[in-house]
Amino acid sequence: MEHDCTFLDELLPSERYSLGEADRASRAGDWGTPEDQRVRPDAVVWPRSTDDVSTVLEAAHERGVPVTPYAAGTSLEGNPTPVFAGISLDLTEMDAVIDVRPDDFQLDVQPGVMGGAIDEAVAQYGLFFPPLPSSGDISTIGGMIANDASGMQTVKYGEVSDWVRALEVVLADGTVIRTGSRAIKSSSGYNLTDLFVGSEGTLGVITRATLGLAGVPEQIRGGRAIFPTLDDAAEAVFDAVRSGVDVAKIELVDELSATMANAYLGLELPDAPMVFLEFHANHDVEREIDFCRSIFEAHAVDRFEMAGEGEMDELWRARKDLAYAVQSYDPDLEPIHPGDVTVPISAYPAIIRYAKDLAAEADVMVPCFGHAGDGNVHYTVMVDRDDQESVETAERVYADIVEKAIELGGTSTGEHGIGRGKCEYLEREHGTDAVEAMRALKRAFDPTDILNPGKIFPETVSPGGRVRLPSED
Amino acid sequence: MEHDCTFLDELLPSERYSLGEADRASRAGDWGTPEDQRVRPDAVVWPRSTDDVSTVLEAAHERGVPVTPYAAGTSLEGNPTPVFAGISLDLTEMDAVIDVRPDDFQLDVQPGVMGGAIDEAVAQYGLFFPPLPSSGDISTIGGMIANDASGMQTVKYGEVSDWVRALEVVLADGTVIRTGSRAIKSSSGYNLTDLFVGSEGTLGVITRATLGLAGVPEQIRGGRAIFPTLDDAAEAVFDAVRSGVDVAKIELVDELSATMANAYLGLELPDAPMVFLEFHANHDVEREIDFCRSIFEAHAVDRFEMAGEGEMDELWRARKDLAYAVQSYDPDLEPIHPGDVTVPISAYPAIIRYAKDLAAEADVMVPCFGHAGDGNVHYTVMVDRDDQESVETAERVYADIVEKAIELGGTSTGEHGIGRGKCEYLEREHGTDAVEAMRALKRAFDPTDILNPGKIFPETVSPGGRVRLPSED
Repeated sequence: MEHDCTFLDELLPSERYSLGEADRASRAGDWGTPEDQRVRPDAVVWPRSTDDVSTVLEAAHERGVPVTPYAAGTSLEGNPTPVFAGISLDLTEMDAVIDVRPDDFQLDVQPGVMGGAIDEAVAQYGLFFPPLPSSGDISTIGGMIANDASGMQTVKYGEVSDWVRALEVVLADGTVIRTGSRAIKSSSGYNLTDLFVGSEGTLGVITRATLGLAGVPEQIRGGRAIFPTLDDAAEAVFDAVRSGVDVAKIELVDELSATMANAYLGLELPDAPMVFLEFHANHDVEREIDFCRSIFEAHAVDRFEMAGEGEMDELWRARKDLAYAVQSYDPDLEPIHPGDVTVPISAYPAIIRYAKDLAAEADVMVPCFGHAGDGNVHYTVMVDRDDQESVETAERVYADIVEKAIELGGTSTGEHGIGRGKCEYLEREHGTDAVEAMRALKRAFDPTDILNPGKIFPETVSPGGRVRLPSED
Repeated sequence: MEHDCTFLDELLPSERYSLGEADRASRAGDWGTPEDQRVRPDAVVWPRSTDDVSTVLEAAHERGVPVTPYAAGTSLEGNPTPVFAGISLDLTEMDAVIDVRPDDFQLDVQPGVMGGAIDEAVAQYGLFFPPLPSSGDISTIGGMIANDASGMQTVKYGEVSDWVRALEVVLADGTVIRTGSRAIKSSSGYNLTDLFVGSEGTLGVITRATLGLAGVPEQIRGGRAIFPTLDDAAEAVFDAVRSGVDVAKIELVDELSATMANAYLGLELPDAPMVFLEFHANHDVEREIDFCRSIFEAHAVDRFEMAGEGEMDELWRARKDLAYAVQSYDPDLEPIHPGDVTVPISAYPAIIRYAKDLAAEADVMVPCFGHAGDGNVHYTVMVDRDDQESVETAERVYADIVEKAIELGGTSTGEHGIGRGKCEYLEREHGTDAVEAMRALKRAFDPTDILNPGKIFPETVSPGGRVRLPSED
């Protein structure tokens, strides 16, 4: 054991923590943590209340024991991987919907609530939580907030940060604070809420959130468009967005991803670049569909088909399961670093073209799909782990695409956070001085660096000096 | 001179700074600074570039000279009043529109650009900047960002923070950083952008901003509704919002404010509680108007009238000029602390009723108007400055309404910032520990407290210890 966690004995009933092998092993990484970067925590704690979280943090703070929040583990950048071991704080048992206030389009939840459970709790009022990621049904709201997640409907409704109204947060030393208010807007004091959103558990642990909700639209229509080339598809998406088409989902799926989806789900999608669409409106949705169709026709669309009731379910399932489809496509090939980059919409055709050209040059498979209307592309590089040259090529292709996205004015991560996987790009994206400002924030909130240390920054920010990550020693 | 500012001599050409009486006197306060709280800065500086700002801050930082950003001076809470004197950094000469990127719905501007100039610069592309406050034509974007302003269209489009994509900021020691990116979303590192938005120049000086834009709607229709009682009007607004009416402006004007507007503008508005409305749509705006009308009819609306082309101009002018109308209503009465509180929409009827009951009990005039759809109310208390009892009563009524808004789950300021006027409510609203977290941020970014000291917090945060504001000594 790297850190002695037997002090938990005096703090919690035995069923709320574990020093056992199996519990520790199962929280050694998230979906995106490569096998050789998994780190077992020294202990797992399941708090059931804000008090529990506060008690554990206060004690860990006194002892200098790292605490890394953990929940569903569906993140992709190693965000909840306990790099320096210590305590994995599993928040999945704090999963209550505390209060629903339909008149204010708000509800209060604990962090372990699953995205799907939020929509279930508010459906009776005709409301929904718009920014859920594709993994929303199996991801917790705490994780979504910590990574500032977003999803297919972000193009119309915004990302998670746009829907967090207030938070309860436990700070590194156990102090409990509340941020924000129930008012729809405020300019009172510093915006702590949006500082904690996306901070990946490095500044505090979220124990309660007040979320905004939207009314379920009266009309929802889905469809798909098939293009002769991927360039046509990307240009069509760009043109639709810049023309102001009011679309609720606009997803790009390249030929390779379609092939992988067919193999995984037994579907018969055409082997062609596609755009999946959904329109939301309270009236006259057809007019918006026609507007979109006319733009797509100017980009040589082969087929533009709107689906009947229920017909879209299969397509959306295919889209949602693309990550699994890529993973299981070829037992000899492993997808490296699944994640995303996001660029300004005007640069969307360029980033897609760049990725595909690079893949062709390097002779590797780079499936591309994503929330195209946001300028977002999910991509990975398929690699043969037993072939060192293949690994090196894949890593180079992967990195070049991140660099290109930044060069185009975009971001190294639109919706998955920096975690550990993207920390080497932080300075490249923001500049040394902005990252130093971020470090100053970290030191202000967590001077002894116990909260999820080793994330976001390429080194820990311990006051004792620059400490490299363990794997870099 | 409280602080020796002759060092400016070596830094800047003589036309970019002034130690002269008149220049200093005219930057001693904003619209909302009471006469006895005006403080003349020791010097005024007009930077013309980011480099100028950086040079001045670096030198001021070395010398411990306070620097308070200043621009149009249209704020209401004393936000740019140089409480500790020092340098008033007047950013109005940095007023360039740097780059318009219509395909990305973005433009880059310097901080001294007026809101109206933004809309002018992008009108040719069919775009506009939605969150402008009522004073947008005569306020600078830098001030709007620093106070996280919002306005009549916030009910549909959000506040200024929702439209700031990236910033260039000069930190206290002169370091220049860039935050955010041109991508529509990012979860890369801490959200510095939203931390600087609304920080009132206490964490850094904004020298450039990338703003988002929206498409001008094809259909814009304005109108007004007249109600028998203010309660009916407030309930009708609440009902419309909770029912999801898609309204772009929904403004409450009470009987007293209408009377004042009539007197100021020579109008003949009815002496009755009114709601001014505007609807934006790309098609079928009539359907939304009918939806709103049906809800208002359930709240006993007397008249619901949509205006023809141009007919709304007078009404919107009346609404925009209400602040002046209140100011000039009675030469013997002065409105104290013009500003706003904002509550959850479900509490809107309650805060309006509370304010009017309190006014009746205390026998003072409390005109109420505001962005009702956001739960926002602008109010003031009319006071006879020569009558000490009147002053005390007015201060009590004013404070009770702020306290009530907080008690109802709202905020002490929805859109004007804390400045100096609301700093005594900061801890009441956020709690001691959250305010301590805010202080930690301030110390991290401005350890020697030179940036707009004496604002937001009830005391300065100088490391030397708790320093009360000068007027409280």
